[in-house]
Amino acid sequence: MSELLEKAKKAKAITRELAVKTTEQKNEALRKISEQLIKQMDYILTENEKDIEAGKKNGLSESLLDRLRLTKSRIQDMADALLQLVDLKDPVGEVLAEWDRPNGLKIKQVRVPLGVVGMIYEARPNVTVDASSLCLKTGNAVILRGSSSAINSNKAIVQVIHEALAQTDIPSSAVQLLEDTSRETASQMFKLNEYLDVLIPRGGAGLIKSVVENSTIPVLETGVGNCHVYIDETADKEMAIKISVNAKTQRPSVCNACETILVHSEWANKHLSELVEALQEKGVEIRGDQKVREIAPDVLEASEDDWGTEFLDLIVAMKVVDDVTEAIEHINTYGSLHSEAIISETPENVEKFFNYVDAAALYHNASTRFTDGFEFGFGAEIGISTQKLHARGPMGLPALTSTKYIVKGTGQIRN
Amino acid sequence: MSELLEKAKKAKAITRELAVKTTEQKNEALRKISEQLIKQMDYILTENEKDIEAGKKNGLSESLLDRLRLTKSRIQDMADALLQLVDLKDPVGEVLAEWDRPNGLKIKQVRVPLGVVGMIYEARPNVTVDASSLCLKTGNAVILRGSSSAINSNKAIVQVIHEALAQTDIPSSAVQLLEDTSRETASQMFKLNEYLDVLIPRGGAGLIKSVVENSTIPVLETGVGNCHVYIDETADKEMAIKISVNAKTQRPSVCNACETILVHSEWANKHLSELVEALQEKGVEIRGDQKVREIAPDVLEASEDDWGTEFLDLIVAMKVVDDVTEAIEHINTYGSLHSEAIISETPENVEKFFNYVDAAALYHNASTRFTDGFEFGFGAEIGISTQKLHARGPMGLPALTSTKYIVKGTGQIRN
Repeated sequence: MSELLEKAKKAKAITRELAVKTTEQKNEALRKISEQLIKQMDYILTENEKDIEAGKKNGLSESLLDRLRLTKSRIQDMADALLQLVDLKDPVGEVLAEWDRPNGLKIKQVRVPLGVVGMIYEARPNVTVDASSLCLKTGNAVILRGSSSAINSNKAIVQVIHEALAQTDIPSSAVQLLEDTSRETASQMFKLNEYLDVLIPRGGAGLIKSVVENSTIPVLETGVGNCHVYIDETADKEMAIKISVNAKTQRPSVCNACETILVHSEWANKHLSELVEALQEKGVEIRGDQKVREIAPDVLEASEDDWGTEFLDLIVAMKVVDDVTEAIEHINTYGSLHSEAIISETPENVEKFFNYVDAAALYHNASTRFTDGFEFGFGAEIGISTQKLHARGPMGLPALTSTKYIVKGTGQIRN
Repeated sequence: MSELLEKAKKAKAITRELAVKTTEQKNEALRKISEQLIKQMDYILTENEKDIEAGKKNGLSESLLDRLRLTKSRIQDMADALLQLVDLKDPVGEVLAEWDRPNGLKIKQVRVPLGVVGMIYEARPNVTVDASSLCLKTGNAVILRGSSSAINSNKAIVQVIHEALAQTDIPSSAVQLLEDTSRETASQMFKLNEYLDVLIPRGGAGLIKSVVENSTIPVLETGVGNCHVYIDETADKEMAIKISVNAKTQRPSVCNACETILVHSEWANKHLSELVEALQEKGVEIRGDQKVREIAPDVLEASEDDWGTEFLDLIVAMKVVDDVTEAIEHINTYGSLHSEAIISETPENVEKFFNYVDAAALYHNASTRFTDGFEFGFGAEIGISTQKLHARGPMGLPALTSTKYIVKGTGQIRN
């Protein structure tokens, strides 16, 4: 039997046991893992160093090496996050609805774990702790498939997790790492409907696309964001500039950062130069259409590809539009259904934007950067879903649950 | 461009328009379709007759012909169902949650349509009206892919729907039928992630399996039910027999009918003969394990396959078990996560059953036949989901919706 099949079967076998663990049993596991991460910090760092050395030999870029690198402070952050998760409400067992039928049946809908979660992710070893802890808190078993570049770090972290779990009531097969990181194994995971209830890809656009297009297991699609800020005719100048700069530059590498700014022509005539200047002061490269370049000639020329690109960098595309309708059309054509903002003092335009833009999160007079489980107040984040089924937008712990109906009768039969 | 691609693009193009149609506009469309179905009854029946004739020539079984056949009373039922749907609450626009953040952001989660629904179904032409009307009410566009055996009926019904929609504010491309019913077209639908938001298969186990195993579009999996009734040691004799007979015989061809009865050995020693007799009186063929046959020697011998079979007929498998734990193990091994019942007067066994059986609906002292959108009080039913993501159990109108977050600010940026 392949490693994947063996581990998937083990995971499936304990799902019902995990589903009935108490909140306190699960929290105790989170506390022990937190403790153990600190105790074994040196061991994890030594193993991580092996990955870093191999990465350097293989010519990984500095930014990839940075994602791969663990430090004392990063491990401390991971340990702290585990303790924060302890304080969050356990969604399992929550009663979502309860009602009686005329025939006397009492119906109750309660939250239950999904079962087995398959996690496919790239370099960052912190995802190993993050995914494991979120799954543990929600009573799910998890199969982790990280990248080969992080294999030593991931093995060390999972060993530490297993040592911690050995001191608790949670079986160690609740968290399993695939040591075989071949593409073939990932492809086999895509079709393992019998054992895996959901696949969650975490990483770049290529990884996510590959999972979505090949998996027959339900996927929680996260991560890709080609987000827009639309500055309407009546937008307050200062606010529009402040929000555009924040959405683009506060953290350019993340999915809720702005990639294209759309500007109403009247507003552009009055204030576009100032907007361009403010962005350039922050080191942003601007790629504009013809009209933008008429007002700001030092701006580069945008290509058709730029409208559809998630730059994840200090680059922004910029276009002048005639009205909110053109802005909406542009967003619905090129956007990724993630986060879209309108800056405006015209209520009917805001309403139109809210109604006609198809995206997980829509903003009026605020930065797209707020699309985030913590910023929304969820206290944890599985990811930001850009799909429409199951969960959309920032996903908190309930996104890792399903429900069952409990029906109590006194001998009712159907007529 | 293929018919499929052309129609999928048309559907996608009108999703935002459909999303903002008012409840009254959508209800008017439902009323007009209802009216038109009655007016054009003769035309539909004539076209249906062509399918019936062709079916006879092709040697379709009497039960398949029955599913294919439309009658005046069946069309009247379809028209009546449309008017019942008018009275149901429109889920689109419903505010699911609303809260303020410490930074002053006001967040609201509202229901929106899914977008484009792909419906793949077998012989029954009534699904054409059913799926179209549920999608219309929830602001979704639908692409219908029925079977070739019902093509004349389906074309006639969709023509009637289009004539009705022409009198309303709903564009006719909200409902489109694929006239090409080849397997290739269905396979192409499985991969049309760019245009279709969800696929819903309606039909036999083979069809559903094929869609689930091949579609990369999210699927709402419905329909297959290998359901059990477990009679515990303390079960009331009359109640246990009444519920078993009801769950098996009241409508054996549906997914929530019981396929295996598990009986506690103590109860079996006292009452099994009576249970067997009651079932046999209703014409049920019983296939029992060794212990059942020791008590009731005229019962046939069960094969291993019988435990996993959805008979959909007056056949039931029967097994004697030692306790509730063995019953739970059996159900979790062979069941299809649909509907499972325990008949018992021992609260801790009921609790154990509720906790450890993994299924969409669990019953205590009631028939499995109640797993149904109408019996649950939802007023409509898209199907009964046996998957864990998005929706589980009987699905009402909200299962055809997604959500979006609407965030209102006053210039907030992220620090």
